[in-house]
Amino acid sequence: MRAAIFLGPRRIEVADRPDPVVAASTDAVVRVALGCVCGSDLWYYRGESAHALGPIGHEFVGVVEQVGAEVRGVGEGDFVIAPFKFSDGTCANCRAGWTSNCVAGAPFGTDGVDGGQGEAVRVPFADGTLVKVPSSGHSDETMRSLLTLTDVMATGHHAAVSAGVRTGSVVAVVGDGAVGLCAVIAARRLGAARIIALSRNPARQAMARSFGATDGVAERGDAAIEAALEMTDGVGVDAAVECVGTAQSFATAFAIARPGSTVGFVGVPHGVEVPIDTMFGRNIGLRGGSAPVRRYIPELLDDVLQGRIKPGRVFDYETGLDSIAEAYAAMDERRAIKSLVRIGTKELRP
Amino acid sequence: MRAAIFLGPRRIEVADRPDPVVAASTDAVVRVALGCVCGSDLWYYRGESAHALGPIGHEFVGVVEQVGAEVRGVGEGDFVIAPFKFSDGTCANCRAGWTSNCVAGAPFGTDGVDGGQGEAVRVPFADGTLVKVPSSGHSDETMRSLLTLTDVMATGHHAAVSAGVRTGSVVAVVGDGAVGLCAVIAARRLGAARIIALSRNPARQAMARSFGATDGVAERGDAAIEAALEMTDGVGVDAAVECVGTAQSFATAFAIARPGSTVGFVGVPHGVEVPIDTMFGRNIGLRGGSAPVRRYIPELLDDVLQGRIKPGRVFDYETGLDSIAEAYAAMDERRAIKSLVRIGTKELRP
Repeated sequence: MRAAIFLGPRRIEVADRPDPVVAASTDAVVRVALGCVCGSDLWYYRGESAHALGPIGHEFVGVVEQVGAEVRGVGEGDFVIAPFKFSDGTCANCRAGWTSNCVAGAPFGTDGVDGGQGEAVRVPFADGTLVKVPSSGHSDETMRSLLTLTDVMATGHHAAVSAGVRTGSVVAVVGDGAVGLCAVIAARRLGAARIIALSRNPARQAMARSFGATDGVAERGDAAIEAALEMTDGVGVDAAVECVGTAQSFATAFAIARPGSTVGFVGVPHGVEVPIDTMFGRNIGLRGGSAPVRRYIPELLDDVLQGRIKPGRVFDYETGLDSIAEAYAAMDERRAIKSLVRIGTKELRP
Repeated sequence: MRAAIFLGPRRIEVADRPDPVVAASTDAVVRVALGCVCGSDLWYYRGESAHALGPIGHEFVGVVEQVGAEVRGVGEGDFVIAPFKFSDGTCANCRAGWTSNCVAGAPFGTDGVDGGQGEAVRVPFADGTLVKVPSSGHSDETMRSLLTLTDVMATGHHAAVSAGVRTGSVVAVVGDGAVGLCAVIAARRLGAARIIALSRNPARQAMARSFGATDGVAERGDAAIEAALEMTDGVGVDAAVECVGTAQSFATAFAIARPGSTVGFVGVPHGVEVPIDTMFGRNIGLRGGSAPVRRYIPELLDDVLQGRIKPGRVFDYETGLDSIAEAYAAMDERRAIKSLVRIGTKELRP
């Protein structure tokens, strides 16, 4: 099969790899229909964090080609969504719903497991990992939204859930990347009364509005904080959703969070110092991390299939597998919010 | 009147102060029955944090002597509990229940307001601050427990609530000071199934057991972490309650918290670095701070009056006001868990 291979910073090529096969009785092999590039892929692409040389990508949807003898939940021909990490579904963390903390789990594209940016993937613990889509005949629009459930939409949801967004909340979303935009969808879905989107980019601000943001802040730094506080009578927001992971975005989130609220965070923290004195003095909580996507897919799936949420709109750039280096470059240069990669043949798109 | 005065590290004297009077129409003057010394008082006592020279102490119960024209909730002769901070009860933070973050509030003993370690106190915003005890004729045991509602018991409760303790939780309490011991009471009260008390002190370990701890860890550092993990099949606890505020106690709390759990913290952080990468990777939240005591008093009061909780047992040392320097020294030298100070005459103890 053909698959994207990481050869070092800014060096991604498509090469031949052995066709994956069922190795354990709990494995499945999935033929990939659609994959995409994650904001977190840019960290190693840019050389800012380490990644083993080899297969990459952890977001994919596709069709089950083969299953091991013990697999019960999915079968050949099923169209499935894979969370960005595989999980056994049986350990104490999985049973408690924290599938991204599975003791036997790891992200696709690591630990000798295929990446999602290739034609096929061996999926360990298929029953604990894959979610079957219970219907077929989906439009391309729906397919794009189903693809977001592998990571970005579920991660935006985790940010909003972690920040404690509920009916009537006044929410601020810091970050206008694909995760931030999905966090707007999630906040709206959870019943937020007001959603303040912090973005200096008019196109992204417009997309945030179309996803449910009621207010926008285009300022940066201290001026952004001042603007958000002014919108909330100086009190701050009920829930601050941090979707970037930098020192500045964390500082902004804490500055606009009202006493007693929680900063929800899902951006991998880079150079962040947590303001523990502010947290203590103002009773602001901090919660988030690597989203338990497998737990969230079922509840989000129905909203996608019913067309109530359309997170697939964050894909504003696309390539085929052979041009995947372009998909990375477009995001790296901020020409794209998020890049879709069409991998499988038309037959793999139910 | 006579009151304790801070003259500098380890220099506390009792001196004459002007009798407090109603200055604003929302003030009350309270004649103090009982006061006490807080673990946080030791920070300035030891010269480890700053405090203005002058009146000190922020924990007291007593009898209302006089009220301003606008005060409605309490009247002359009422026996009242004062939270460690006064609060107006009307600002956005107070209305949301975060009375310790009142925009007009401050701790007693700061900002020109009397301390609780003196014979009388002018209480600003009496209606937003004081809680009337609805009965009289209390035993000394009950009086001691009522005194803990001013801070230490409510703070232990805040730690447990912040950590998300609920029915069936497996909880660890890090810290065997008065707050940690009260956190054990709180965790039990909130329905914890197991409470692991980390304490190397046999007497405090025994008190923790009498308050509801089911397990004890007497080891320190890495050995303590190992012991607590072993007790939880290597998974960690559902809620880690941090009641010290040092780098080591935070590190212990994070190490024994299971993925998806929350570290609740109420010790003023000193030299703490929050392990943001651990929080992200293991989905561990952090929440806590200065307890909204005024909000918690009503729900805890009933349990004290009914004898269901007896937090007053943390007072294992007592003096009169004139010997208050001894009360500090006993805690500083860890001869006492917490020092009670008898201030008013017998008539002030209903």
